Amino acid sequence: MSDVTQIVIRELPTDNLRADHFETRTAAMPTIEDGQLLVRTILMSLDAANRAWMQGATYREAVKPGDVMHTYSIGEVVESKADGFSPGDIVAGEGGWATHTVMKARAVARISDYRPLTHHMSLLGIAGKTAYHGLMHIGEPKAGETVVVSAAAGSVGIFVGQIAKAVGARAVGIAGGAEKCAWLVDELGFDAAVDYKSPTFFKDLQAACPGGIDVYFDNVGGKILEAAMFLSNLKARIVCCGAVSQYDTAEMTSPKGVPGLIVVKRLKMQGFIVMDFGDQDAAALADLSNWYNSGQIKVVEDVLEGLDAAPAGLVGLLKGENRGKRMVRVAPDPS
Amino acid sequence: MSDVTQIVIRELPTDNLRADHFETRTAAMPTIEDGQLLVRTILMSLDAANRAWMQGATYREAVKPGDVMHTYSIGEVVESKADGFSPGDIVAGEGGWATHTVMKARAVARISDYRPLTHHMSLLGIAGKTAYHGLMHIGEPKAGETVVVSAAAGSVGIFVGQIAKAVGARAVGIAGGAEKCAWLVDELGFDAAVDYKSPTFFKDLQAACPGGIDVYFDNVGGKILEAAMFLSNLKARIVCCGAVSQYDTAEMTSPKGVPGLIVVKRLKMQGFIVMDFGDQDAAALADLSNWYNSGQIKVVEDVLEGLDAAPAGLVGLLKGENRGKRMVRVAPDPS
Repeated sequence: MSDVTQIVIRELPTDNLRADHFETRTAAMPTIEDGQLLVRTILMSLDAANRAWMQGATYREAVKPGDVMHTYSIGEVVESKADGFSPGDIVAGEGGWATHTVMKARAVARISDYRPLTHHMSLLGIAGKTAYHGLMHIGEPKAGETVVVSAAAGSVGIFVGQIAKAVGARAVGIAGGAEKCAWLVDELGFDAAVDYKSPTFFKDLQAACPGGIDVYFDNVGGKILEAAMFLSNLKARIVCCGAVSQYDTAEMTSPKGVPGLIVVKRLKMQGFIVMDFGDQDAAALADLSNWYNSGQIKVVEDVLEGLDAAPAGLVGLLKGENRGKRMVRVAPDPS
Repeated sequence: MSDVTQIVIRELPTDNLRADHFETRTAAMPTIEDGQLLVRTILMSLDAANRAWMQGATYREAVKPGDVMHTYSIGEVVESKADGFSPGDIVAGEGGWATHTVMKARAVARISDYRPLTHHMSLLGIAGKTAYHGLMHIGEPKAGETVVVSAAAGSVGIFVGQIAKAVGARAVGIAGGAEKCAWLVDELGFDAAVDYKSPTFFKDLQAACPGGIDVYFDNVGGKILEAAMFLSNLKARIVCCGAVSQYDTAEMTSPKGVPGLIVVKRLKMQGFIVMDFGDQDAAALADLSNWYNSGQIKVVEDVLEGLDAAPAGLVGLLKGENRGKRMVRVAPDPS
């Protein structure tokens, strides 16, 4: 069998991630054991959480130098030593930055016949389900309430704002730069968007939320979380989804007012991962599909071409250059 | 009518509270208007929250120099201009550090015939209900889980640990000093207690919670909250009841790991005040009474004698010198 191309971690970053923290190598095609699948990578997800994996153990083990960089990917089974899987099956699971990876059959999910395949990374994938479950089950927005989401132009943020609108709430996005903010309002229908890079960010956010904040969906942590807590109404809900401001740095910033503001305003802050609500995935996918089909939710994807695009693509994602779900196409869809 | 004795705020503290931030004065007996009651003070509650009121608006308006110091008190109606209230009625409500105060009839609660009156400040009062509602409705301890409570020897803490035991959980207290810690275990039946003043505090807490922390009832914030978050299990619940470490100081300390640990461990942190669960007071009082009558819960009270004891009593409470519910007896119970 031919060789496989892999991108490995050359050195762990201590501060900002750079593309040269990775290097490309060629290796012999892996062989599989009982219960395993050899999978040809089609799409690889790029996520801020990838950077957190380099800081140490999170909800999964840490990655280390010499490892093929981990990722969530969709691919085609080319060889199976597991019952129920055959070459040609399309599966999703924990893969690596590589043209081919080995997956455990019991840890993969089958991908339905719904196409395009990219939607299984966005609308119907982890991004869409994370937005849905976090907002609906922890944020619990009521019609007329104000929902604020940070990293609003990102993979999860675009859905949070649009779902908020779909259930009758006001959606306010926080993003970097005037252009992105205008895009959130003009293209995705957010009621307002605020540039966190502006020197008047706090006042801008306050002005965008004249009735205060009822639900804050936090993807970033740090000073933006702090601002949202100060502007929260009594009994506001803070959905703790990520802390991207804390991933690509050696400097951690804790928001002031913890636990003081939580006590005084009787706030709820709650973290989650998408699997916590796996028993409600069917309802999530049904709602998301319906809103998409009715035009209430737009899908925005940022697909980079070729395995080699991954390192710079992740660096750029951490700088916020993407709009919507960023992924890498390693190979064309099977015909 | 005779004069009234009042203790007023002479100057707001900027750092540690001292007794000389207050001064005593004599004033003319207040007159009341329609809807008001003149109440002779019997018992005044001393609470860490009193100090927070001096930092600015909390769940109630701030207090300011020249104000009679606010308090929650129990007293006897001596004059009524409100329907349904007569001299001799025993009521509880927002009063002041004074022999007599004016209360709005619609803002007071009638005290039942249950005696001793002091229990309406502890077991059946705000302390007991705060412990019960916070632990049961936010902490939701399951049998066999580990519940940790800070300020464990304080008015709320003693009940949190004992309620945890009553529902089959393991109770670990955090308190200041070896003597208090021994008392929590020997007298109140906590499974373990840890001295936060010890240089090995973190390791001690870790050793006292070999299975990690499932519920942390936080009365203090700061570094102790931080330690508890680091030792929390996945999906642990943190009951944000108070932040006494942050009240009597100009220096605020935010715990590290917010929101990182909340995300990674999928923690829930939630603030509350006792009134949030007012619709479940009856169940709380029934359970608390039953546990008291069966000997599962002991009541510990720290009753200081005389109005003049209030300033030093509050200063001492902030230093942690009390065990159980601290209050001031201003006048004997009516016979």
